[in-house]
Amino acid sequence: MPNATPSWLDKVRYNADGLVAAIAQDAKTGRVLMMAWMNQQALHETQQTGRAVYWSRSRQALWRKGEQSGHTQQVHDIRLDCDGDAILLQVTQVGGIACHTGRQSCFYQQLQEKDGSPRWQAVDPVIKDPDEIYS
Amino acid sequence: MPNATPSWLDKVRYNADGLVAAIAQDAKTGRVLMMAWMNQQALHETQQTGRAVYWSRSRQALWRKGEQSGHTQQVHDIRLDCDGDAILLQVTQVGGIACHTGRQSCFYQQLQEKDGSPRWQAVDPVIKDPDEIYS
Repeated sequence: MPNATPSWLDKVRYNADGLVAAIAQDAKTGRVLMMAWMNQQALHETQQTGRAVYWSRSRQALWRKGEQSGHTQQVHDIRLDCDGDAILLQVTQVGGIACHTGRQSCFYQQLQEKDGSPRWQAVDPVIKDPDEIYS
Repeated sequence: MPNATPSWLDKVRYNADGLVAAIAQDAKTGRVLMMAWMNQQALHETQQTGRAVYWSRSRQALWRKGEQSGHTQQVHDIRLDCDGDAILLQVTQVGGIACHTGRQSCFYQQLQEKDGSPRWQAVDPVIKDPDEIYS
């Protein structure tokens, strides 16, 4: 049965939408770059190509990370968590920019207190203008 | 309006179940320890107490991490991602064990190739017997 789903893909617990959460971490610095979603096909293609492929929930399509921006992610390690519903990738982030805002990481908003009130504060620099990235 | 929801909590994009994904990363080693979910109350309590509080989807209840095991997470930093639907915590993992299997991290299954077939392989040691943790 060459076309049967490989069993490792079946061990992942996809949610009702057929998706599993996927976290990308910079293999060198350990920085968490982004969290996105994969369906079975995206995960399979990630394993086969060694490049991160996600599922875009907004576009409802496979999202080959970097296909527009060139900021692909080379995948060195794929992990599954204890209950099978989250994936962790160790990646090399080509171009050093994972976020569509032109920042290194999508997690650039830090909760800070100002005058006793917490608020989200953007703390990481924009490395490259998004207009430049996607033009 | 002292009981109004603080605006920083409103900036988070909760999903249809009222939940946001939350990743816990070891503040010192950078290791990703787990991914879980928070509702607004869990996030608020995390900020107020400095200890990680999640929402248990299986129990449908607040999950004060470590309330049974003692393996609490001290939270040093809270980040929100670009589209507001994922949280990243920098934590100190008390006891050094985040996973209910007695391992340091929930991401202990690594995708490896054996005889040309990928499979998930547990690669991290059990530090403490779960029966001991939860007794």
